[in-house]
Amino acid sequence: MTDPIAGPVQPTSFATAALRPLSLNDAVFAPESFLGVWQRRNATRSLPYCISQLDASGALDNLRRVIGEADGDYQNMWFADSDVYKTLEAAAWQLGRTPDDAQLLAFVDSTGALLAKAQGEDGYLNSYLTVVAPEKRWQKLHWSHELYCAGHLIQAAVAAARAGVGAELVTVARRFADLIVERFSTVDDIDGHPQIETALVELYRVTGHEPYLDMAKRFIDLRGHGLLDGGRFGSAYLQDHVPVRQAETVAGHVVRQLYLLAGMVDVAVESHDSDLLEAAKRLWDDAFGAKTYITGAQGSRHRDEAFGDTYELPSDRAYGETCAAIASFQWNWRMLLAMGDSKYADEMECALYNVIAGSTALDGTHFFYSNTLHLRTGHDGSHEDAPSQRLPWYSCACCPPNLARLLASLSGHTATTDHSGLQIHLYTAGELNTTVDGSPVHVAIRTDYPWDGRVELTVTTQAPLTLALRIPGWAADAQLDGEPVDTNDGYVRLQRDWSAGVTVTLDLPMPARIVRPHPRIDAVRGCVAVTRGPLVYAVEQSDLPEDVVLEDVRIGPAAPITAGNLPDIPVSLIVGGSIEQSTSDALYSGHAESHGEPSELVAIPYFLWGNRKPGPMRVWIPVRTAGV
Amino acid sequence: MTDPIAGPVQPTSFATAALRPLSLNDAVFAPESFLGVWQRRNATRSLPYCISQLDASGALDNLRRVIGEADGDYQNMWFADSDVYKTLEAAAWQLGRTPDDAQLLAFVDSTGALLAKAQGEDGYLNSYLTVVAPEKRWQKLHWSHELYCAGHLIQAAVAAARAGVGAELVTVARRFADLIVERFSTVDDIDGHPQIETALVELYRVTGHEPYLDMAKRFIDLRGHGLLDGGRFGSAYLQDHVPVRQAETVAGHVVRQLYLLAGMVDVAVESHDSDLLEAAKRLWDDAFGAKTYITGAQGSRHRDEAFGDTYELPSDRAYGETCAAIASFQWNWRMLLAMGDSKYADEMECALYNVIAGSTALDGTHFFYSNTLHLRTGHDGSHEDAPSQRLPWYSCACCPPNLARLLASLSGHTATTDHSGLQIHLYTAGELNTTVDGSPVHVAIRTDYPWDGRVELTVTTQAPLTLALRIPGWAADAQLDGEPVDTNDGYVRLQRDWSAGVTVTLDLPMPARIVRPHPRIDAVRGCVAVTRGPLVYAVEQSDLPEDVVLEDVRIGPAAPITAGNLPDIPVSLIVGGSIEQSTSDALYSGHAESHGEPSELVAIPYFLWGNRKPGPMRVWIPVRTAGV
Repeated sequence: MTDPIAGPVQPTSFATAALRPLSLNDAVFAPESFLGVWQRRNATRSLPYCISQLDASGALDNLRRVIGEADGDYQNMWFADSDVYKTLEAAAWQLGRTPDDAQLLAFVDSTGALLAKAQGEDGYLNSYLTVVAPEKRWQKLHWSHELYCAGHLIQAAVAAARAGVGAELVTVARRFADLIVERFSTVDDIDGHPQIETALVELYRVTGHEPYLDMAKRFIDLRGHGLLDGGRFGSAYLQDHVPVRQAETVAGHVVRQLYLLAGMVDVAVESHDSDLLEAAKRLWDDAFGAKTYITGAQGSRHRDEAFGDTYELPSDRAYGETCAAIASFQWNWRMLLAMGDSKYADEMECALYNVIAGSTALDGTHFFYSNTLHLRTGHDGSHEDAPSQRLPWYSCACCPPNLARLLASLSGHTATTDHSGLQIHLYTAGELNTTVDGSPVHVAIRTDYPWDGRVELTVTTQAPLTLALRIPGWAADAQLDGEPVDTNDGYVRLQRDWSAGVTVTLDLPMPARIVRPHPRIDAVRGCVAVTRGPLVYAVEQSDLPEDVVLEDVRIGPAAPITAGNLPDIPVSLIVGGSIEQSTSDALYSGHAESHGEPSELVAIPYFLWGNRKPGPMRVWIPVRTAGV
Repeated sequence: MTDPIAGPVQPTSFATAALRPLSLNDAVFAPESFLGVWQRRNATRSLPYCISQLDASGALDNLRRVIGEADGDYQNMWFADSDVYKTLEAAAWQLGRTPDDAQLLAFVDSTGALLAKAQGEDGYLNSYLTVVAPEKRWQKLHWSHELYCAGHLIQAAVAAARAGVGAELVTVARRFADLIVERFSTVDDIDGHPQIETALVELYRVTGHEPYLDMAKRFIDLRGHGLLDGGRFGSAYLQDHVPVRQAETVAGHVVRQLYLLAGMVDVAVESHDSDLLEAAKRLWDDAFGAKTYITGAQGSRHRDEAFGDTYELPSDRAYGETCAAIASFQWNWRMLLAMGDSKYADEMECALYNVIAGSTALDGTHFFYSNTLHLRTGHDGSHEDAPSQRLPWYSCACCPPNLARLLASLSGHTATTDHSGLQIHLYTAGELNTTVDGSPVHVAIRTDYPWDGRVELTVTTQAPLTLALRIPGWAADAQLDGEPVDTNDGYVRLQRDWSAGVTVTLDLPMPARIVRPHPRIDAVRGCVAVTRGPLVYAVEQSDLPEDVVLEDVRIGPAAPITAGNLPDIPVSLIVGGSIEQSTSDALYSGHAESHGEPSELVAIPYFLWGNRKPGPMRVWIPVRTAGV
């Protein structure tokens, strides 16, 4: 068994760079850093809240019903087992950092014991199928989520193995994985919801047992041959519309597509399958070239929770599921490991600080499932999928425990190593304590990122080492120790024979910027967005006079942007603009004109919207037309 | 029993004007007129095709299963009976005009006999509930469509009564209606899909039996009190979210909302309920002030087939269900009868010539269910709800037979009478032959509408008569016999003592026009549309060089628009514009710029798109920005 967070990713012949993840506790966030505060809030608020919801929602009782320890009917979604597994995974990662947390330990141990009892003699484990429809085991895979749930069980076990907790969980997961390999090595069938693929590769990484990797590869290559009946949803919804190696575009249900892509990269890396990696790169170009919101969100359609057509990116009906952003983060992480290109880290950073950060309220116990970029004036927020503010829970509660497991494992995603160096991808105050080529490396980082772009790194390593620092795509005029940096591939590389205590200072200037959309994005034509560093900004009704309709706000993109001073918002911005009103109420007319009054607009980081009071919000602001 | 198409609408104290519909054969389209050709295509192509689909889809077999005359399982949607009823209604209206059509007569008689046999002793009739779940009769009204189907049965019977055919059908419908009145007069329950309301008022109109009217009113007032469980769809989907008299906005499933509104107006008019009519007027202002596409389509969301928020009108994801446009036409017709305001006729005309006309292919046997305003380059048309071209049938086949019944009854919607005059609302070549205050009135109309705005009307009535001619909202500089017309309310009124054979000529100039959207419609900011008369135009890929991407097309709104000469397109237009391409492939950047080449664009009437070959299309064209 090996121990790093994502296991030993082998350098491969096709990768221009192949990076290796850190071990679990190699990266530590400073307690008061942005990520440190967030990770602690996850540990003290969100994760305990998710655990309490497993009881409240009946998800744990479903498993107890399997062994006769709970009465009544099965409750909740038919894939509610996965809520249990994702919460377990989060608890395991968290225990890896805080092993003395007795409550978490008790949760992992008691749930592991419950799972061991609920597991069938042959290894099968699924409360819905066992309680409600035992005769349909493996018979309705297009919709049953049996392998999806199994995947999350396996990922929880992998986390437990790496954190050194929950030994029973690992046994349960392996027994189920062995049953899956036994059955599906000869039967042509796949799950309508990908997830098992990446889980099996991860299990291979911690066990070295090759049949898991082979099984993952087989599941991936069985897709796109019409095994599943999508009914009115269509085969793209189930990711069965095209063999993955031939796919040219991302399509269908976003989370399914992205989980599948993560699994593809895992299999490609572990089995040196350059064809599969090329397919993933092609789909990455499509996804991030034409189907991603400025916040990093993906999913343009509420209907079928799906990707849209090329350049179909409506702000007000952005679906942008929280789980999709998490999946995008995970997929980009795997692409980064395989390829070493900073563009993947750029997308991780964008999703993390915007859509993912925005999906949870500052109290840690309210969540968005869907992450809009424009909440309209008069919005009907009665629909759970498009609420006016973050809700305490969802009938389909996939997102909150998914957030919990991401945050609990986040520190491992900030840096990587290779045979000669350390690469820092995401900046945060804290410490890195790892080994490169067998030698210990320690770096202390001081920064107020993402509010300030100055990053001071003190290396206490007495050895030759290439320290690679990511220059984000948004950063112009970056400097290292006062000198302009030179980078071809998004990293500045300091190949030095370090002496202990040397400090280097990276400056990533963070002026507020005006960003324009590609002209083929019809939905935000004539609009600009305001960004600063990795953060996208938004205008909220809260900061407008009550009688001003948000949709009448205009921006003067050439006006200077200055710092605001809102309480509780670390960096707010003031932007020149106007309030424009139509001279006609007609919906369509030959002579629509507007008249406007100059006005100063306040913009706040998108991820903070809806935390003061509910109300309209928009990211893309129409450019002023009247009186200019 | 009375005989006019919508029965005797009583003048009411609250209506500023109350109009009376014509009798069934009072209006006749000239065979070669636009509407005449369309109506004949409906009679000879679409209606027989719908009849054949009743067999192919199993809808008739479902009814045969009730009486043991067909084997096998129930087929198709659980509300497939309504397909049979809508087709019957279409056949009845058509037989009213062509009573010698032996095939249609045989269909009406044989289906009426089948229904009579399938009807229960107590009058109940629903093949799904009877065959599949008899124990659930009336128990699942939020989803069962039992009263919805009953409503369509009743409407078919009303059409048959007015056309003087299918006597058995009328008996069946009345027996079922009597059962419904018996049960639901004391039980508080409603159907999740409105439709029964307007049907019961119509049945009251042809029978004079007041319990039908009372029942309709009761069904309307029971809404909005939480009787139905909408589950994840929510109560607005089922039109149970607010008491209808308190509603401020249209919301939820569009067809359900509009059918309910039609029923509200019917009840309001027949029971002199000004409060109910005020509610309908308020919702009309909301629907047509902020939630209607330029084509007359309604429904901004595929998810839940729903209205969007205020000003949420995306072109590429317009749902614009065909049935919704038909429902809008029917609701506006009732508003017109109640209020006499030309704005309702304007909306009827807009929907008719654009979204409704566009929903059927020129072959009469291919249909759109959803009517987009922008089919993107690279569109994934594999989803039935957003196909790339009109399809021969749908798994939910509500639209084609709905079109058939509208077209078969269309002539009755072109004009009305009141105590002293005749009002002409929709212009077409043809004849009007009716009575006003007991005296015969005959008007012959010659026009090439909608291609040309000259309308010549020859009155052969020797009597005092006020002839009111609608001046469409789009028409500027209208003239009557060469003189500018003077109108306050959208009608020019000729109060004359006519002598036989007098001709008046109305000129409605039809220059091509550039139309701008209200600035709060984000989805088409920076775009304009081209219209001519009542027709909205579109740009199709078919008319562009193959290497030009439709989304790169720009329009110069100040450029002159000239007539084109495409074959098979009566009036195409040529508009000055350009092809603009971004200088950057980045989805978001600080410096997006475009460069453009001037180009002439060809625009065709929207309703004709997709009839030459499939491909991208858009109604709203971005305004040229580069090089101006």
